[in-house]
Amino acid sequence: MTIQGEMIIGRRVVRGSAGTTRAFNPATRAEMEPAFGLATADDVASACALAEDAFDTYRNLPLEQRARFLETIADRIMDIGPALIERASAESGLPLARLEGERARTCNQLRLFAKVVRDGHFLDATLDSALPQRTPPRADLRMRKIPLGPVAVFGASNFPLAFSVAGGDTASALAAGCPVVVKAHSAHLGTSELVGKAVRQAAEDCGMPDGVFSLLIGEGRVAGQALVAHPAIQAVGFTGSRQGGLALVHTASARKQPIPVYAEMSSINPVFLLPGALAAGGAKLAQGFVDSLTLGVGQFCTNPGLVIGLAGPDLDAFRAAAAEAMGAKGAGTMLTAGIHKAYVDAVGRRTGIDGVALVAQGGSEGAGCAAQAALYACDAATYLASPALDEEIFGPASLLVACRDEAEMLAVAHHLEGQLTATVHATGADRELAAGLLPTLERKAGRVLFNGFPTGVEVSHAMVHGGPFPATSDSRTTSVGATAIDRFLRPVCYQDVPADLLPDALRDDNPLHLARLVDGELRVAK
Amino acid sequence: MTIQGEMIIGRRVVRGSAGTTRAFNPATRAEMEPAFGLATADDVASACALAEDAFDTYRNLPLEQRARFLETIADRIMDIGPALIERASAESGLPLARLEGERARTCNQLRLFAKVVRDGHFLDATLDSALPQRTPPRADLRMRKIPLGPVAVFGASNFPLAFSVAGGDTASALAAGCPVVVKAHSAHLGTSELVGKAVRQAAEDCGMPDGVFSLLIGEGRVAGQALVAHPAIQAVGFTGSRQGGLALVHTASARKQPIPVYAEMSSINPVFLLPGALAAGGAKLAQGFVDSLTLGVGQFCTNPGLVIGLAGPDLDAFRAAAAEAMGAKGAGTMLTAGIHKAYVDAVGRRTGIDGVALVAQGGSEGAGCAAQAALYACDAATYLASPALDEEIFGPASLLVACRDEAEMLAVAHHLEGQLTATVHATGADRELAAGLLPTLERKAGRVLFNGFPTGVEVSHAMVHGGPFPATSDSRTTSVGATAIDRFLRPVCYQDVPADLLPDALRDDNPLHLARLVDGELRVAK
Repeated sequence: MTIQGEMIIGRRVVRGSAGTTRAFNPATRAEMEPAFGLATADDVASACALAEDAFDTYRNLPLEQRARFLETIADRIMDIGPALIERASAESGLPLARLEGERARTCNQLRLFAKVVRDGHFLDATLDSALPQRTPPRADLRMRKIPLGPVAVFGASNFPLAFSVAGGDTASALAAGCPVVVKAHSAHLGTSELVGKAVRQAAEDCGMPDGVFSLLIGEGRVAGQALVAHPAIQAVGFTGSRQGGLALVHTASARKQPIPVYAEMSSINPVFLLPGALAAGGAKLAQGFVDSLTLGVGQFCTNPGLVIGLAGPDLDAFRAAAAEAMGAKGAGTMLTAGIHKAYVDAVGRRTGIDGVALVAQGGSEGAGCAAQAALYACDAATYLASPALDEEIFGPASLLVACRDEAEMLAVAHHLEGQLTATVHATGADRELAAGLLPTLERKAGRVLFNGFPTGVEVSHAMVHGGPFPATSDSRTTSVGATAIDRFLRPVCYQDVPADLLPDALRDDNPLHLARLVDGELRVAK
Repeated sequence: MTIQGEMIIGRRVVRGSAGTTRAFNPATRAEMEPAFGLATADDVASACALAEDAFDTYRNLPLEQRARFLETIADRIMDIGPALIERASAESGLPLARLEGERARTCNQLRLFAKVVRDGHFLDATLDSALPQRTPPRADLRMRKIPLGPVAVFGASNFPLAFSVAGGDTASALAAGCPVVVKAHSAHLGTSELVGKAVRQAAEDCGMPDGVFSLLIGEGRVAGQALVAHPAIQAVGFTGSRQGGLALVHTASARKQPIPVYAEMSSINPVFLLPGALAAGGAKLAQGFVDSLTLGVGQFCTNPGLVIGLAGPDLDAFRAAAAEAMGAKGAGTMLTAGIHKAYVDAVGRRTGIDGVALVAQGGSEGAGCAAQAALYACDAATYLASPALDEEIFGPASLLVACRDEAEMLAVAHHLEGQLTATVHATGADRELAAGLLPTLERKAGRVLFNGFPTGVEVSHAMVHGGPFPATSDSRTTSVGATAIDRFLRPVCYQDVPADLLPDALRDDNPLHLARLVDGELRVAK
């Protein structure tokens, strides 16, 4: 499959006529072939109007057909073969093996949501029986969730497959019954075209309505803002910077009809090293920490950007071991020239903060957009007094904070902004301190983990990839895992609706075999 | 219990020192004793700080204790006796019998949420087993919902008990584990003090932490904005006007850390009269419609402000019967002088719209804030071309829209803004048209009902009192019924957390006997 520089508007493959743009190879700093046509305002409007047209048909298809569509997308992505991995690697600087793993993850996400769709648990089917003899009588009340409507998806630079065109937001929105309009990330245009065409083919294979999926190639923020402002769009999924996410939040709330935006933005993912854990294996922890920090050139939302311990010889030993481990790490190519420049600038600013010392660096810069890992250190008083130290540095940089005592460690925990993750390294000897930290950390983060590192986000039922602001714009949700589907649903109550007009999920004979809440009691279908 | 003009800040009964205000009797247009002291900025901050202090203790109490607190609030409200009903009637103009019913509903809500708390279903406990042999290994992942934090509640003018100090928002927030700070509605200050003191007593009886509940008396929007802007507040529940709700939404989104606002605002609750239903019993429908429209002087969020039928003799007969029924309705006292003035103004504006005719009126104005019911009529073309006709008139006024044909009726349905309810009157003969309307109506409304009237909102598990903007600021939720608790919760994932630090909801031995999703399968406890 050759990349043509095209986008997808419903069933049509279209070449945008509002100018051209090109992909960029961050390793060679060279622009890549071919040129991509940019979407006009009409193209954006067409994709949205088609999505609106497709909505009622799509959401009312049998759940089995919706599930097969998700699985077929996975099949068509695999059909692209090595060309997808090679293009994604050239566009992102990410290694082939990582991208093969990411492709598997992408397909697993689609298949997990197919299972979620078949289960029907997401419909939250709830029935309250009529009580005609009661004073006043109670009507027959039945509730289910329905999809919100067409969803705009903005892919992430750092997951060209798993959080892009057919990534988690798209999979969960399609699973919910929402048509999707994706704005391709400029960092991986060719990858986007390949995957977009795979989704288009899957829609055709499965007899989906025209408009269930579109992929727009657009100039920077203009096309994105137009997409979010379009009246047909009813929700937004976004993964990226705090600035980018907030811009979409503002556009969405300024609409005549405001809509929810699920923006996953900014997190520094604190790691607390408790004394027992440091004493038991500080050197091994240091190696694990540096491996996690530099994985994927530090370009993970869950990158450990803050490490907190109690000042003393064990923390000094950890620091020395981390410095040594970091020194052994070579420079890695970052995803884009913009991300590379932002990293170099942010590291430069950090070096200038009073009380913050540069402890270690990785291998020095190579060709292209190569980034050098960096570890800084300061005491807790400095950290607590320096708001700039709460800002995420996207890349392989972290800050080690030394606390005088346990009270100061708790103060650091209390001071944190909202996070995707918070990590505790503890042994049985640390139980009391860990128990003291936990209530604060669960208020600050979407995921609290022990004795591991936060990079690596499992796609499963219990995963939460979310958290209080600024980690996300909506702490009530997750963008990874089965419950990501809940973001695109809302409840509707059906009161005394005639039996032959009831949706299947709410019929007396329960043809979907759903577990349902009936008069307040959970009933599991046979 | 004498009313003292006081507010509640945690365990303290406080008289505000920022000036005074008084309650108002809308039937006599007289100010009432005593004077109420107004909250200072420090009072607002104290209530919020105490709520924050109470949060971790309150949320971690055993669920049984939380449930008993809710039930005890109901008991203490009943203990107030007739004084509560008499004061509420004097402050609101609502009849005693209606307020007795509303008190029962308020207590039922508190008891329903006690049951919801004991069930623990709201915790959404979900477990994914560790897979240590997998490549890469999967960690042990467990998810539960935790409360958001202190919640600010703004009572509604039209439900001085059921949607005020200890009403639905307060009950659901306390059930979720959130401390509550209520801003009393100026329309029922004495009622608020009585109920506030009952909640305070219940908190004392049940050993609740200081700050689990506060009640502020504040000057207009100033105290309300300060409350929503306070960093401790993590969510807002509001019932009232579109303007008032949007002001809180804007304050909440302009915070350093934006927070969710659940504002129930504006709905005209369309009623579709299909031809078969009109032919079978138009006169009876007309009586039912006028009864629903004028119930409580039309001061319900679910008041039927728009009626749609096909032009013809049956609709003419309905109109004549509705006019006759309305003529027999006397004027009723509205809740406040402000609401009365807004109603008179809105009715006046409607009379001036080209193509809109005044069809019928109720009894003419009496003393005090008495309102005269009004029925207007126009054709669908006029309705579709007049945005002013989509504005809610809060009070006993409605608009009858005559459509040329079924296509125009569907166009009216499609044109509607978001609604709390949409109603269809239909017989078997109307099946096809009803089936054609349903997909549009379920997209427009939180509740779709057949062959009834929308006033009367059951408090149960399947109820949805919500709907797309402008009915509410967040269509994903309901403010009535068991799932109102979901508004104040967010998910947290616990990864490899040691067994002795896990919350009870997620322990292997399931001490709370919860139904849990384990490795994707629902397991109901024995």
